[in-house]
Amino acid sequence: MEISELQSALRRTYYKRDAKRGRDATFRWLTEEVGELAKALRRGEHDELELEFSDVLAWLASLANLTGVDLEDAMARYADGCPKCERSPCGCGFVR
Amino acid sequence: MEISELQSALRRTYYKRDAKRGRDATFRWLTEEVGELAKALRRGEHDELELEFSDVLAWLASLANLTGVDLEDAMARYADGCPKCERSPCGCGFVR
Repeated sequence: MEISELQSALRRTYYKRDAKRGRDATFRWLTEEVGELAKALRRGEHDELELEFSDVLAWLASLANLTGVDLEDAMARYADGCPKCERSPCGCGFVR
Repeated sequence: MEISELQSALRRTYYKRDAKRGRDATFRWLTEEVGELAKALRRGEHDELELEFSDVLAWLASLANLTGVDLEDAMARYADGCPKCERSPCGCGFVR
C-alpha cells in the first residue's frame, strides 16, 4: 500500500469526524495511542504490538489530513538514506 | 512509496544504530518527536509541520523494525474502511 493510499483511505473513512473533533483533540487521541503502544511494548505480545502500531499510524495520518500535510511528500526525505548525509547506512550520526 | 519500502529504507539507514540504542530508548525518541509535532501544530508553519510528521513516522518505522512489526501488514486493516464496521465513511462511531 502506498503511503498516499493509506492517507486517502483514512480521509474517506474518518475525515468528517476528525474535522468535527478538531486538531487538538485528534492530537490527544494520537498521544493516547502512543501510550497504548508503550503498554504493548512492555507486554511484548506480537499481535497487540501490531495493532497498536497500526492505530498510531492511523491517527498520525488523520492528523496529517486535518493539517494539510501529505505524508508521501513528507517521507520523501527518508526514501534514499539519511536526510542529512544522504547515505544508507547513515554515516553522520544524525539523530532524526 | 509503499509503506514497506519506507520501512526497508529506514532499516537500511538506521537499524544498526537503533538496535544498539534499543527499544526503550528508541521509543523515547519517538515520544520526543511527538512533542516536536505538538510544537509544530501550535506554531502552524507548514514546512515545520511536514518535517515533524516525517520524523514521527520515521521513528515509528524504526521501532517497528526493532520489534519485528511489518507496518504494511499492520495497516491492512485500514485499507478498505473502518476495521470495525468495514464501511467508508465509518458508520459505527468506532474510535480507533
